[in-house]
Amino acid sequence: MNSKNIPFDLEKIKSISKDHPTPFYVYDEKAMLENLEKFLESFNVLNGFKEFFAVKVNPNPFINKLLVDNGCGLDCSSMAELVVAEKLGVTGENIMFSSNDTPLEEYQKAIEMGAIINLDDFSHIDFIDKNLGLPNLVCFRFNPGSERKGNVIIGDPKESKFGFTREQILEGYKILKEKGVERFGLHTMIISNELDESFFIETARMIFSLALEVYEKTGVKIEFVNLGGGIGIPYKPEDKGIRFEHVANEIKKLYDEIISPSPLKSIKIFLECGRVITGPFGYLVTKVNHLKNTYKDYVGTDASMANLMRPGIYGAYHHITVLGKENDEKNNTYDITGSLCENNDKFAIDRPLPQIDVGDILVIHDAGAHSHSMGFNYNGKLRSSELLLQEDGSFFEIRRAETIKDYFSTIDFNKLQDFMKK
Amino acid sequence: MNSKNIPFDLEKIKSISKDHPTPFYVYDEKAMLENLEKFLESFNVLNGFKEFFAVKVNPNPFINKLLVDNGCGLDCSSMAELVVAEKLGVTGENIMFSSNDTPLEEYQKAIEMGAIINLDDFSHIDFIDKNLGLPNLVCFRFNPGSERKGNVIIGDPKESKFGFTREQILEGYKILKEKGVERFGLHTMIISNELDESFFIETARMIFSLALEVYEKTGVKIEFVNLGGGIGIPYKPEDKGIRFEHVANEIKKLYDEIISPSPLKSIKIFLECGRVITGPFGYLVTKVNHLKNTYKDYVGTDASMANLMRPGIYGAYHHITVLGKENDEKNNTYDITGSLCENNDKFAIDRPLPQIDVGDILVIHDAGAHSHSMGFNYNGKLRSSELLLQEDGSFFEIRRAETIKDYFSTIDFNKLQDFMKK
Repeated sequence: MNSKNIPFDLEKIKSISKDHPTPFYVYDEKAMLENLEKFLESFNVLNGFKEFFAVKVNPNPFINKLLVDNGCGLDCSSMAELVVAEKLGVTGENIMFSSNDTPLEEYQKAIEMGAIINLDDFSHIDFIDKNLGLPNLVCFRFNPGSERKGNVIIGDPKESKFGFTREQILEGYKILKEKGVERFGLHTMIISNELDESFFIETARMIFSLALEVYEKTGVKIEFVNLGGGIGIPYKPEDKGIRFEHVANEIKKLYDEIISPSPLKSIKIFLECGRVITGPFGYLVTKVNHLKNTYKDYVGTDASMANLMRPGIYGAYHHITVLGKENDEKNNTYDITGSLCENNDKFAIDRPLPQIDVGDILVIHDAGAHSHSMGFNYNGKLRSSELLLQEDGSFFEIRRAETIKDYFSTIDFNKLQDFMKK
Repeated sequence: MNSKNIPFDLEKIKSISKDHPTPFYVYDEKAMLENLEKFLESFNVLNGFKEFFAVKVNPNPFINKLLVDNGCGLDCSSMAELVVAEKLGVTGENIMFSSNDTPLEEYQKAIEMGAIINLDDFSHIDFIDKNLGLPNLVCFRFNPGSERKGNVIIGDPKESKFGFTREQILEGYKILKEKGVERFGLHTMIISNELDESFFIETARMIFSLALEVYEKTGVKIEFVNLGGGIGIPYKPEDKGIRFEHVANEIKKLYDEIISPSPLKSIKIFLECGRVITGPFGYLVTKVNHLKNTYKDYVGTDASMANLMRPGIYGAYHHITVLGKENDEKNNTYDITGSLCENNDKFAIDRPLPQIDVGDILVIHDAGAHSHSMGFNYNGKLRSSELLLQEDGSFFEIRRAETIKDYFSTIDFNKLQDFMKK
């Protein structure tokens, strides 16, 4: 997984350049589905296991279609993400609706679609009950507060806006029961992009214990626990990815130890991973337009933060390969920039790379997650197209590039003409 | 300017709520134009003064139209921003084209429109000369490197991707002269959102000296200096805004001292401010959907980072008023959140505010700059509408809200149907 190999070469990119001008995304269907198969095979040792792909990570409906066909449910958290599910014919308990600060109409849509409703807050029990009526299956999101530490990305759980406290969880299930709800789930999500396997195992231990406590104190039998996502990917070549089988087996051991001897023995285990499912299999392909030397050496590409925000806003590392120069010595040090009028529009800072020339094609790795989906139009920049590299080696456009016309789609220019005459 | 008054009240917002559901932006035309008048009056003491409004700060064409009609040129830095100018009939030297890592087609468009071409890099002299031919007026952007310190937001100039070094500036003008260019400008921009008046005065001193040095060493007579933008606004109630008149008068003193006695005595002074022109006159209006108490008190609004990114990505302060509770004691401490599935989707953290109820209308101040224009669609969230509060007190929609259909506009659902049959 961390070889940083690329499933296409310079010739291939040149051969499609007429139909597909840079910048564009490429997703590697074969590698993505092979990884998914490995992921599901590993976690299928867990009772009733199901993975709900976090749509926000990569909301392209074509990508979601491939994942659904290969065994995933969908984790949706907004109206648009529910519409992705609807367009793909995904309904019912194949959807986990995990939102927060949720508008009424989104709950309504999710309930109509039969989705599993995962409440983020105690007050939402009453909100749904009064406005829509509670569905027969309800899940709660748990926030352990100071009981657990989060990681750098997701931050301290007690500073996190998400979830119920322990007391609210216990009180909440009692209320659900009184109101006639018959099926119950329990969810947590306290880390993001984590490469320490022990986090996931400890989360399972925490949630298994809580499920037992809920049973003991309220009589509510939780039917599934959703351990959230947060499995990181090795962005840097020296990073080590999570071993799915190891984590799955350790969670199974805890299950056998804590759950199996208990009255909850049939409890099902869900995950809602996103990044680890699509992240390593997406590539942003961009051309070098300019070289610049001032106080440093700069490489100016035809992409920008509009296409990939993570390095600019988080300082996140994304590996970069110069196509056709894979084996050249990395004797140069460059800042790789986009064209946005913001100095943080850089894909890499002080990065050792082979000598780069104008016209070179750069490939930015691990751009399959939180990448195209986070693009903005600041500075009038347009979001790029997305291509699927299919198993037969062909490229298939799964999203067209934005145009200037799209950029202005919410402006009424006829109205502007009248306004200008004033 | 820093009274944090609001030019509308709760009744007014309620009265338009049927036509304009929250969240939406409101821009205060009257206050914006009064401020612009004061700004221009102050800086008009400078020889040949012109302000080029930085379109990226607020690219709404209606806003730009008002600014143009009231004396501004436009500072454009991308194709879409040139199109804004074109739609408004702004051409020629009323446009400053200040881009970086610029695609050829954008230079071509800018030259066709007769814009002032401000080059960000030495290599672009040759790039334009070879591909398009150099225009008769060319400007260079200067980056002082370690000669000057930038501020927190724009960072250290020698780590900045922008501009020419001193040596490149001198060499560059010689080349322009040899190539027959007859008119010359000089530009710099080393700070952003700065409230220390001395920065602007020192920048003027630096650039006046450099203009003289250029003349002495190359014989090139610079026709204008563009001192950039970067004038900050008082986001916090205790912040003090820049005194336009004071800064203008200090720059005039330096001009009289350095430029007037020199052969450059007719040099013109330009600015390209954005934030200070529109920032304080924009308001994001949002409704409270939920209240939540866990380890802290949370107020869940119907807006999100899709509408306003600055607090989430920079931790930036934006003042918040609860409409109708302007005079209530601030006895509560809240995190004001959006509905994005990201914990940094907060408009304020630990903010003292009056007690808030579901249904309350919150006004987020100083959202006229780098606000709507930076919105993204992450998590399937939609960007809001923009309203102009006109001088006659009426609200006029100058951008409609995005719809789910807009969100999917780059997806071909017919193609998806075929793909699903495979």
